[in-house]
Amino acid sequence: MEATARAHTNIALIKYWGKRDEKLFLPMNSSLSITLDKFYTTTKVVFDPALKADRFFLNGKPAGAAETAKISRFMDKIRDFAGAKWYAVIESENEVPTAAGLASSASGMAALAAAAVKALGLQVDGRTLSKLARQGSGSACRSIYGGFVEWQKGEKADGSDSYAVPLLGRDDWELSILSCLLESKQKKISSREGMKRTVETSPFYAGWLETVEKDLAAAKSAIARRDFALLGRILEANALKMHATTLGADPPFLYWQSATLDVMREVELLRERGIEAYFTIDAGPNVKVLCGRKDEEAVRETLAAIPGVQRVFICHPGPGVSYGPY
Amino acid sequence: MEATARAHTNIALIKYWGKRDEKLFLPMNSSLSITLDKFYTTTKVVFDPALKADRFFLNGKPAGAAETAKISRFMDKIRDFAGAKWYAVIESENEVPTAAGLASSASGMAALAAAAVKALGLQVDGRTLSKLARQGSGSACRSIYGGFVEWQKGEKADGSDSYAVPLLGRDDWELSILSCLLESKQKKISSREGMKRTVETSPFYAGWLETVEKDLAAAKSAIARRDFALLGRILEANALKMHATTLGADPPFLYWQSATLDVMREVELLRERGIEAYFTIDAGPNVKVLCGRKDEEAVRETLAAIPGVQRVFICHPGPGVSYGPY
Repeated sequence: MEATARAHTNIALIKYWGKRDEKLFLPMNSSLSITLDKFYTTTKVVFDPALKADRFFLNGKPAGAAETAKISRFMDKIRDFAGAKWYAVIESENEVPTAAGLASSASGMAALAAAAVKALGLQVDGRTLSKLARQGSGSACRSIYGGFVEWQKGEKADGSDSYAVPLLGRDDWELSILSCLLESKQKKISSREGMKRTVETSPFYAGWLETVEKDLAAAKSAIARRDFALLGRILEANALKMHATTLGADPPFLYWQSATLDVMREVELLRERGIEAYFTIDAGPNVKVLCGRKDEEAVRETLAAIPGVQRVFICHPGPGVSYGPY
Repeated sequence: MEATARAHTNIALIKYWGKRDEKLFLPMNSSLSITLDKFYTTTKVVFDPALKADRFFLNGKPAGAAETAKISRFMDKIRDFAGAKWYAVIESENEVPTAAGLASSASGMAALAAAAVKALGLQVDGRTLSKLARQGSGSACRSIYGGFVEWQKGEKADGSDSYAVPLLGRDDWELSILSCLLESKQKKISSREGMKRTVETSPFYAGWLETVEKDLAAAKSAIARRDFALLGRILEANALKMHATTLGADPPFLYWQSATLDVMREVELLRERGIEAYFTIDAGPNVKVLCGRKDEEAVRETLAAIPGVQRVFICHPGPGVSYGPY
């Protein structure tokens, strides 16, 4: 009747950008991510036959109505899957500070799916758990696994073949991921809204779809060979392409701020100085920089010195879902 | 045997981006520009049967070998056209300071074509002169005319139907064009190189071509109705699309600097304050801002206060080619 699970957030190296089904969170393209060690969500789910509705506590406080409703809709999908009817008390602790500039929905929905399924006494494989988590938030399906993870988009209308698979364990390649938090100056267009507008209006979206599966194949090959320079070039180009599609949307939009460009240039300069570092950018202004473990301190210093960079978090590849108590 | 002509530079509102013929300067798409009053080139051409080669003086000094060879290759095309054989002394005065962040090739090649043709005693119409100027530098074909100008891309392989036509006289719409010069931090990829790489490698180039003629038609309709808000939205979106195509090139590139983004955001804020202003960006970091004549001082002040903006030049729609003496 109760269980606790923990899932870590992930960043996409080949981007998930565009849904083919909004309700089932089915993507237009496959994607690839690294799970991060530093940021995670721990969630306890207690089913209780006496409850008349789900109750959701976030970081020790009752969550608002909108947030609770969103969580409860996801719980309905889990109940459907399990054939269960009880409501639950859900307590989430987010170790993904908003200040880290990383979304907590991936780790949050993955931890919730894992805890709820376990609390209901079900034994499911990673693939099934990944499909469930996907229905809470698309990228959550990747947070089931540690290290490098591929989300295979699938083809079926019911989403039964759209799930993540592990590619490379967290300890199999010593990389560092530096997350640069920028001073935020503007209101945000959510990734949900951004990808929807892009898919519907951007003349560049076809070009994105044309090349993203090729990028994915090349990135997988680079990972298999531990070819960091190749992986880096691919992930940078892929991120730039994703952001280019938004410039063609109607109306056009851009997630970058001026400091985003400064970080991008600084990463270029690092490479000119012989330090292999590559950037990626999600649906927001912040920049994540990948480098070899031996260079992480030099890269951190360089990034922290850029005006407009508020904080730099050093992360490493993290683990997949685990179960408490903690 | 001698003549002097003056041509003004122009900025594209619907961008010329991509050549279908490198030698004849034939574009992949039609474009639309405003000729500017402030920046121009004045060129004197004196044909002399005694000369063994062209001689080229730029701002009073003999030009270098590469520059002279480029001018002489263009003179060969003019000689071919006119059936003439003589070489010439060419004296150009550029009132397009490099510091203005505007290319001088458009005004330079237009003035040279006009002066050379007149020096050879030929009477040609604007269309013919435009086609000749185009063979010196693509955008030069638009500098034959003042005000708003359309370069019709044409379809023929020999370029005989690729020339500019005037759309609206310089005095028919009172607009201001503010040219923001940024502190330059990086080496430049020429527009020639940039468009070539984009046409050959960017998956977004097809999307550009798909929408640019529609943008052009909408911009022409906005100009005909003096609908500044509509023209502004179209020209901004068109510039963003052009730059988006470069992010998909292999390797990717970007003409913007961080201050480019700051100017873009500031123009957005101007609009939120009720001042109609719109930006466009050519193949470089500098930003040009269009606004109503009544707002030009307020816009200038705002732009000049942005860190990274070195100078702001206020321009108005300028005249087409004219003939000296001056």
